[in-house]
Amino acid sequence: MKILVLGGNLIHEGANEAFAQFEERTEDQVIFANESLTDEELSQVDIVLGNKAEMVERILSLPHSRLKWIQAFSAGVDYYPLAKFAHQGILLSNASGIHAEPIAETVFGIMLSQMRGIKEAVLNQADSKWDPSAGKFTLLSGKKMVVFGTGHIGSRIGELGQAFKMETIGINHSGHAAAGFNSTLPISEAADPAIVQADVIVNALPLTKETKGFYDQKFFAKLKRSPLFVNIGRGPSVVTADLISALENGQVGEAGLDVADPEPLPADSPLWQMPNVLITPHVSGSYSNYVEGVLEIFEENLRQYHQDGTLVRNEVDLQKGY
Amino acid sequence: MKILVLGGNLIHEGANEAFAQFEERTEDQVIFANESLTDEELSQVDIVLGNKAEMVERILSLPHSRLKWIQAFSAGVDYYPLAKFAHQGILLSNASGIHAEPIAETVFGIMLSQMRGIKEAVLNQADSKWDPSAGKFTLLSGKKMVVFGTGHIGSRIGELGQAFKMETIGINHSGHAAAGFNSTLPISEAADPAIVQADVIVNALPLTKETKGFYDQKFFAKLKRSPLFVNIGRGPSVVTADLISALENGQVGEAGLDVADPEPLPADSPLWQMPNVLITPHVSGSYSNYVEGVLEIFEENLRQYHQDGTLVRNEVDLQKGY
Repeated sequence: MKILVLGGNLIHEGANEAFAQFEERTEDQVIFANESLTDEELSQVDIVLGNKAEMVERILSLPHSRLKWIQAFSAGVDYYPLAKFAHQGILLSNASGIHAEPIAETVFGIMLSQMRGIKEAVLNQADSKWDPSAGKFTLLSGKKMVVFGTGHIGSRIGELGQAFKMETIGINHSGHAAAGFNSTLPISEAADPAIVQADVIVNALPLTKETKGFYDQKFFAKLKRSPLFVNIGRGPSVVTADLISALENGQVGEAGLDVADPEPLPADSPLWQMPNVLITPHVSGSYSNYVEGVLEIFEENLRQYHQDGTLVRNEVDLQKGY
Repeated sequence: MKILVLGGNLIHEGANEAFAQFEERTEDQVIFANESLTDEELSQVDIVLGNKAEMVERILSLPHSRLKWIQAFSAGVDYYPLAKFAHQGILLSNASGIHAEPIAETVFGIMLSQMRGIKEAVLNQADSKWDPSAGKFTLLSGKKMVVFGTGHIGSRIGELGQAFKMETIGINHSGHAAAGFNSTLPISEAADPAIVQADVIVNALPLTKETKGFYDQKFFAKLKRSPLFVNIGRGPSVVTADLISALENGQVGEAGLDVADPEPLPADSPLWQMPNVLITPHVSGSYSNYVEGVLEIFEENLRQYHQDGTLVRNEVDLQKGY
C-alpha cells in the first residue's frame, strides 16, 4: 500500500532517522508530501500519516481516491472534517496516549514556574538582575487541583499532583472514578464546592460541541479562590475575552496557556503582557522522540489493517470526535 | 527569657501575623532587631532567632552576654562562626526539614523549564512572540538523576523524580540507603558509571570543608552525557569558572543555579547570558508560610530549653557543620 506522510511542526529533527528505520521495517511504500505530487499520484494513496486537513480534503475530492485511513499525529482531531470522513467511510486514528507524559510534565513546569518565582527569575536573568523578592513563592503541596478530563492526559496530571501532595479532583462526563484522582465529579456539577474552591484548574478536555466556550464568564464568576487556570486542551474551549476579564478582576489569579484562540495568539492580544499569564506556544505535547511514539501506534494499526482493514489502537469515534 | 529576632530577606509579608501569634503563645519577651539597640540591651538577649552573623558576633563579643542558643532561619549554617560557638558553648539549631518541599518543587520547576521549552516561552512572551520551535522538548521520564545529598531535601527530590519515572541515585557519605532513591553510593565513588552516566545532577549537599569546590574541572570532565546540573545547595561547592568552561565545552549541557559564588551573582558574570543556564536568586527554599514553619521548630525547642537547656530538634553538630 501507499502511505503518504504529511509533515508539520510536530516533526522535529531526528524524525528522518525514525522514518528511515520505519521504511526498513515495512514493505509498504512511503511517500513524503511535497508540492509536486500530481492528482494521479495522490489518488493512489491508501493511507495518510499526518495532520494536514487541506491535503486530506484535496485527496478525498479526487474521483478515484483510494484513501481509506488517516493516522493523525495529534490526540485532538477537531481540525479534520469528521462528518465527511464518516460519510465516505474513512477510518481515523489519533495519537492519544503518547502525549500524556510530555503534556503532564509541561503542566507541572508551567505551574511551578508561576508558583516558585521561576518566570520572574527568567525575566530578571535577561537583565542580569538578582532579585529574591520577585515572585509569589507558594507551593503545590496542600493545594486543591481540579482537572477537567480524566483520560490518559488528565490521569497522569492527577497522578503527578498526588506525588506533589495535592488533593486531586477529576471531572468527566459521568463522574466515573479514574486513576490519579482522590475523587471525581460529573461535568454537570461544575458549581460543586469541590470545583469552585479549587486552587488550580486544568483543562484537559477535547474540543467538542459541548466543550466549545465552556470556560466563560459564568464559569469564572463561580470561582472562590482566584485559582491558577491552566489550559493544555484546546483554545476554543475558553472564551478568551472572558478569561482576560477574569484575570483582570481577580476571579482567576493566574493563567498558564499552552493553547489559545486563535492560534498563533495575535501579537496584540493583551494576554501576552499580563504579568500573571504564562504562554507556551502549543508545545506541551512536543518531545524529541515524538515521531517514534506515533510510529509505534501506526505500525500496530498497520499490521491489523493489512489483515482485515480494521484498526486496533486509538480509532476515533467520528460522532463523538475523540 | 529574652528572644532577639533578626530579620532578613527570608521573612516575607505575612510574617508579622505569624510573630504576633507567636508572642501571644509565649511568655518569653520578644525583641525585634533594630539599629538603636544598645550593648546593654543586647547583653540581655538569651536566644537569637535569625540569620545575621554580624549581629550574633557583636552580641558574643559583649563582656556580659547571656546568649546561649541561636535558632537559624536556614538549613545551611556555614555563614555562622561554628568554631567560636563550640568554644563558647553556644547551641545552634537550624531550619532543616521545612525546606524540603519548597526546594524540591523549585528543583522540578527549574528542570522542567529547561526541558519543556518554558524558559524560551517566557522570553518570547516578553516580545509577544509565538514560536513553537524554541526549546529542547526532552522529558524527565526515563532519565537518570543523581542527587548529591540524601537528607530531607535530597530524599524529597528523589521521591518526586521517581514520580516522574526517573531512575534516581542518591549520594551520601557512607552510601547508606535513603528514601526516594533506587540506589545509593558513597561520595568517594564519584567516578562510578552510575554517576558519570547521569542525565541530571542535583547538588543538595551542605557547605563544609569537604564539599567546598567539590564540583570542579575534574568532576565535570568525567561526565559522559552532558547532564543538566542543578545547584540548590551552596554556591561555593562549585568552582564557578570550571562550571562556565564545562557549559561552554559541553561537558555540562545546562545548568540551573539557585545559588552562586559570590551572591548576589555579579552583573558581569557570563552565567547570566548563557542560553543554557537558568538562574534563580537563592529563593528555592522561600515560601509564603516560611516563618510559620521555622516558628514550629523553634517553639518545640523552646519548650525543652526552658526545662533543661537542651534542644530536641535540628541541633547542629558544630564539628560537622550540619
